[in-house]
Order: sequence, then C-alpha cells, then structure tokens
Amino acid sequence: METFAGFGSPSGFGSKPALVVVDFSLGFTDANSPLGFDCSREVEATRQLLEMARELSLPIVFTTVVYEPHGKDGAHFTTKIPALRVLTATSEWVRIDPRLGREESELLIEKKFASAFFGTPLCSYLASQQVDTVIVTGCTTSGCVRATAVDAMQYGYRVVVPVECVGDRNASAHQANLYDINSKYGDVISLAACRQYLQNVRPN
Amino acid sequence: METFAGFGSPSGFGSKPALVVVDFSLGFTDANSPLGFDCSREVEATRQLLEMARELSLPIVFTTVVYEPHGKDGAHFTTKIPALRVLTATSEWVRIDPRLGREESELLIEKKFASAFFGTPLCSYLASQQVDTVIVTGCTTSGCVRATAVDAMQYGYRVVVPVECVGDRNASAHQANLYDINSKYGDVISLAACRQYLQNVRPN
Amino acid sequence: METFAGFGSPSGFGSKPALVVVDFSLGFTDANSPLGFDCSREVEATRQLLEMARELSLPIVFTTVVYEPHGKDGAHFTTKIPALRVLTATSEWVRIDPRLGREESELLIEKKFASAFFGTPLCSYLASQQVDTVIVTGCTTSGCVRATAVDAMQYGYRVVVPVECVGDRNASAHQANLYDINSKYGDVISLAACRQYLQNVRPN
Amino acid sequence: METFAGFGSPSGFGSKPALVVVDFSLGFTDANSPLGFDCSREVEATRQLLEMARELSLPIVFTTVVYEPHGKDGAHFTTKIPALRVLTATSEWVRIDPRLGREESELLIEKKFASAFFGTPLCSYLASQQVDTVIVTGCTTSGCVRATAVDAMQYGYRVVVPVECVGDRNASAHQANLYDINSKYGDVISLAACRQYLQNVRPN
Repeated sequence: METFAGFGSPSGFGSKPALVVVDFSLGFTDANSPLGFDCSREVEATRQLLEMARELSLPIVFTTVVYEPHGKDGAHFTTKIPALRVLTATSEWVRIDPRLGREESELLIEKKFASAFFGTPLCSYLASQQVDTVIVTGCTTSGCVRATAVDAMQYGYRVVVPVECVGDRNASAHQANLYDINSKYGDVISLAACRQYLQNVRPN
Repeated sequence: METFAGFGSPSGFGSKPALVVVDFSLGFTDANSPLGFDCSREVEATRQLLEMARELSLPIVFTTVVYEPHGKDGAHFTTKIPALRVLTATSEWVRIDPRLGREESELLIEKKFASAFFGTPLCSYLASQQVDTVIVTGCTTSGCVRATAVDAMQYGYRVVVPVECVGDRNASAHQANLYDINSKYGDVISLAACRQYLQNVRPN
Repeated sequence: METFAGFGSPSGFGSKPALVVVDFSLGFTDANSPLGFDCSREVEATRQLLEMARELSLPIVFTTVVYEPHGKDGAHFTTKIPALRVLTATSEWVRIDPRLGREESELLIEKKFASAFFGTPLCSYLASQQVDTVIVTGCTTSGCVRATAVDAMQYGYRVVVPVECVGDRNASAHQANLYDINSKYGDVISLAACRQYLQNVRPN
Repeated sequence: METFAGFGSPSGFGSKPALVVVDFSLGFTDANSPLGFDCSREVEATRQLLEMARELSLPIVFTTVVYEPHGKDGAHFTTKIPALRVLTATSEWVRIDPRLGREESELLIEKKFASAFFGTPLCSYLASQQVDTVIVTGCTTSGCVRATAVDAMQYGYRVVVPVECVGDRNASAHQANLYDINSKYGDVISLAACRQYLQNVRPN
C-alpha cells in the first residue's frame, strides 16, 4: 500500500503476540441479523489463524457487543446505530460464531462501544501476559476493527492486521480504513505473511 | 450523506457543548513543516466557530502533539510516522496556530497519540464542566479528528463535526472518514448548521 | 473530620447526582462467603438511599466482581487476594444482594479490579446522563469504595460518601480510608446530610 | 505485615521492572512549599534505587503535578486541596527535586490528579517497554503513591513498594496505606529486598 512520505513505516512484529477477534458474534456474522453481512471467508481465515495461535499457546481474546435491555449502557452509540439494540444478553446475536470454536480458556470481553479496549479490561490482560504485539481480526474494518487497531497502538502495542481476516459490509469503507491503519497505526499484511511471522514465535 | 439502513441516525445536539480543536499547531498548519498541509480555510472556519464559542463562554480545548527529545513517549506511533518526531517541546511546530488566538483560559492539552482523549485529562475536564456535546474541529480528518470523534462518542458524548472545520492532506481519506463518522459516531454537519445550533445554547 | 491545613475543603453537591453501589454482591455481604463480612447495617442504609434515588429517578449503578473460570482476567489482583477466585459467573456470590431490590433499569457493571471505573463503561454512562456528582456506597471502604471514590474525582465528578452506607471488615482500615477520602477526594458526610441534599435535587 | 486470611499473598517480582518516582517535585519535597514536608530520607533512598535502575538501563519515569493558571484542569481535586493550585507550570514547585538527578532520557509525566496513570500516557510507555513490574516510590503514601499502586495493579502489572522510598506528612496515614497496598495491590518490601531482586534482573 502506498502512503504519503513519512507515513506508513512498518512497526513490525514483536516476540509475544496476542490474537484479538473483534465482534465475530452471530449478530455480525449471520446474514439474518439486522447487523449481519456475508463474512464467511473472513471467519474461515480467522479460524485458521486461531488454530495456529492455539498451537503456540498465544493469548487469545474474543469480543462481543452486549447491551442491557434498557439500552442506556450504549450511550449515543445505539442512537447513531439503532440496529445495535438487538444485541441483548439473552439474544443469540451476542454468541461468538461457533465456527471459531472458542475455548473456555480464551478471554471473552463484553463491550459497549467500538474499540475492544474502551471500557473493558483488555489492556490489563495484555500487560499481564507481557504481550507486545496485537493481531487484530474480525469486523467491521471501518468500525470496531479500526477503533481497536487505533487503541492497540495508543496503548503501546505493535499492531498487525492480516487483511483476509477482517471484513466489512462496505467494500470502499473497508479499503479506506485499511489504508488509514497501514499509514498510521499498524501493519496491514497478508494472512500468509502473518502465519510466517508466527512461525518464528516460540511458545512460552 | 447516505448510509446503510440502521446506521447514521442523528445523535443531535445537547445543551452544553464544548469545542475541541485538534492539532491545529504549526506542525500541521504550516506548509513548511514535514507534517504540514494547506488548511487555511479550515483554520479560518474554526476561527469563526471559536469566536462564537467565546461569546457563549463555552468550554474550549486545544490539543497539540509533543514528544520528549528521546521520543520513547511516542511508542510505536512515531515508528509508523517518523515525521512526528519533529514535534518536540522546544520546536515551533507544537505551538497552536496564532490565527486561532488561543486565550489563556482555554485548555491546552498535550498528547502523544491520535485521540485527544487518550492519555490526557480531557474526559475529566468535560465531565467537570458538565458538557454533553463535543464539537470536533481540526486535523487530520483521517487521523486525530476521527480518533477523537470515536472516543468522544465512547466517553458518552454527542459528537458534532462541522465539515468546513476539519481538514486532511488526502481528499479521499477525508471523505471516507467523514462517511464513517457520520454513519457511526457523530453528526457531520455544515458550519452554518453548527452555528445555528449554537445560537440556541444559552451561556451559563 | 480534622485534616491538614489546605486539605479537606468540601467539593460539595451538584445538581445531577448518580448513586453507585459498589460490590454489594452476596460474595461480600453473605458471611458464608470466604470474602464476606457482616454489613447488614450498611446494606440497610444503602437500601434507604436507593429508595430515595428511585423516587427522584436518579441514575443508579451496581457493580459486581466476576471472573472467568480460568481467572486470567484478574491479572495480579487474584494473586494478591486468592479468595477473589470464588467470584465466577455461575456462582451465587456475584449476584447483587437481593435486599437491595435492584431493578432492571439500573445499570449492572461487571468489573475485574478495585475501581468501579477501571475497565468498565461507567464513565460513559455518567457522562451520557450528564451526572455531576457521584454518591459512592458499598464495600469495602479500604478497597473498592476508596478506589471508586478516587476515580470518580479523577474523572471530574464531585464525590460524596455517606458514611453509614460503606463498610469494611477492618474497623481501623475503614476509618483510615474515610479520612483519606475526606481529605483529598470527596465529602464524607452522614446519611442524614446526604438525604437532605437529595431533597433539593429536582427529578428530571 | 499481617493481613486477613486470603489477602496479602505476594504477587512477586517479574523480569522487566520499571521505576516510577511519584511527585518528588520541589512542591512536595521542599518544606517551604505549602504542600511540602520533610522527606529527605525518602528522597535519598529513592536516589539510591535510581542509581541501580540506571546501571541496569531500566525504564524510569518521574511524575509532577502541573496546572494551568486558570486551574480548571484540576476539576474538583483543587477544590478539595486548594494548596495544589501553587503547582503552575512557571513555578519552581513543579521541578523534579534536583537531588534525584533526572536524566533527559527518563520520562517526565505531567499529571493533574492522584494516579500517575490517570490522564497520562504512562500505561502506553510501560507496555511499549514490555514492563511487567512497577516499582512505586515517591509521595505521598496516602495519596498519589497509593493511587498509582492501585492503578499499576489494575493495568496488569506486579507492584512493588520499597518502604523506605515512600513518604507522607501523616505517619498514621502512611502506615494505614502501606497496610492496604500490601493486602490488596502489591508487595511492600524493604529497600534492601528490592535491591536484591534487581540484582537478578539482567539489563536488556
């Protein structure tokens, strides 16, 4: 990806990555949901990466958006995107897509907003696991993935986004946000390149 | 702006707005800076809005990015964007553009990253002033303005972006980010509409 | 309470308070829990305050500490206090004490650490409700109440602690922390004084 | 130190500590300041620890409290403690005590509130340096040291407080807060024990 001069230098890959899967819950991955869209390929690519992360015993985190029935915990996010209100604790939509096979030892973070870090204990978990690199996957590229990538950088981590593992309902918003992420916040790379990097990480 | 169904509902304007001017320091507004670009019109539109905000005694906040000489306080942001390293405390680049006439009573926030909220006391100031709406101006739309708008929404505020008051060195990134902001995080409106809203705000 | 010169000035009561009930879950209020202690009087005093807050339609928030079965989400807090590990999602201990009659419209915040703000969306809820004062009740005074009072002040709110509504298993730690809170972070007042203040708050 | 059953287990020392020196600025260490008190011994003990940390090239951070002339950036902290208002950018009081010999490569963090983490980029710096342990020194034990220790734990770090290196104007508040920290948030140890731990840390 081309960027302006002085922008988009690689921040690279550290020695202790964590894999964060943003909002691959049924509310987003099931086309029957009012928020859903077809992201089967992105889910499958993420599944492959998860498999590798499990073999390496890397820290793995899933996020899901959940609101109380009264919805006041969504502040103005649910005003801007009323469709979010279907994401209540008792609905199917907040369950992580079963194709990803989340294991009980993998952190499940409930969030109210865009970034996986905002109003959640994610930064504490990453620090306590001595993580230095955050691999961001999930959806949507122009929403919660972008916000998570920005925050991961702001919290002091190297950020890696394997392009096959992030999806969006809007193709041009997808491209525009990958451009911004790669210019300023993290390295947008191929799934193959990400897998190769991981092969050099020793499990601890 | 058109958006997907269920996205982009207006969050509206509250009764106690604050005006946040993001990174209109010489490092960005002076074309001689390695980070600079021509944003004279955006600076002038923001100046007009500031004038109105001063008459109404609204809370006003300026941000500027500043790094220590060793640069370690930039974490991987300065790795991705090496040009940021010119923004040291003793350089001219970190000074707020004098055309905006910052007054001593207007908060000046030094930041290290993209969002005006991240690693700063901005949220405390807004809460202590009982603000309910954050008007975001400044630069760049695809960088610190976007990140600030997302965080303002996440922190519980209504977000308003007057389109003439935000600028970017990349026209398509500018448009793409306004689209995302308006779809999910705040209301992108004209300067005229913003001024009209402010006329209904009573000074306190 | 006496304090050093220049410390302990009252920050006072604003016009839009919220009531935060910290960790009055069965794990702390039931003497059979490994973390429990006798706080029936503090629970009853808080119940009275809740009744008044409900009549006034004030924002009400309950917190409860909950860990995943693997416990890694507790970082080093569960290392320091191994007894916390009983607080799993499926245990009775994480349920809010039924004597407080939590209603569905009252926010329930799950947390991992001491402060009700840390790693939670509490600050967003307070800002979106235009709160200017946080009344802190619950337990323990020397732990999560203190941490919540400090953070409420840091987030820009006036802090009020009605002394009958906060409890601790250790009487001297209770006193020492009330002293610190009153000196630096908020106003420690009687329940009667708190009720009187609330009588002057108009419901909105 | 004795604590309740199930409390006060050691969290231990990791392999990559950082040394945080809280508010040892002249406003606190100079007895002529309205906030000052005699802490020469604590400053000297901290100087010794700094010397060792420099030899080991550990990350070192100093904090200082600084307010703008209008003081609104102090929210209600400066209401509770009016004496804080002397800490303006142009005063001598905000300078780090010269006995500590701060070097330019050592991070200087300006803060507005109690915790060194709150409204500052400290957590980003620690994560970017892959720190796993935070050694907290400075003043006051019952104020900013306590708040920093709580937050360091909350952010996912092991916390160590060398007792000779923290001071308070109030002896009983000092003891009470060391008790709380050791019970719940970190390990309160002797300077000698801290030095011994550091001898096993290999510089990187």
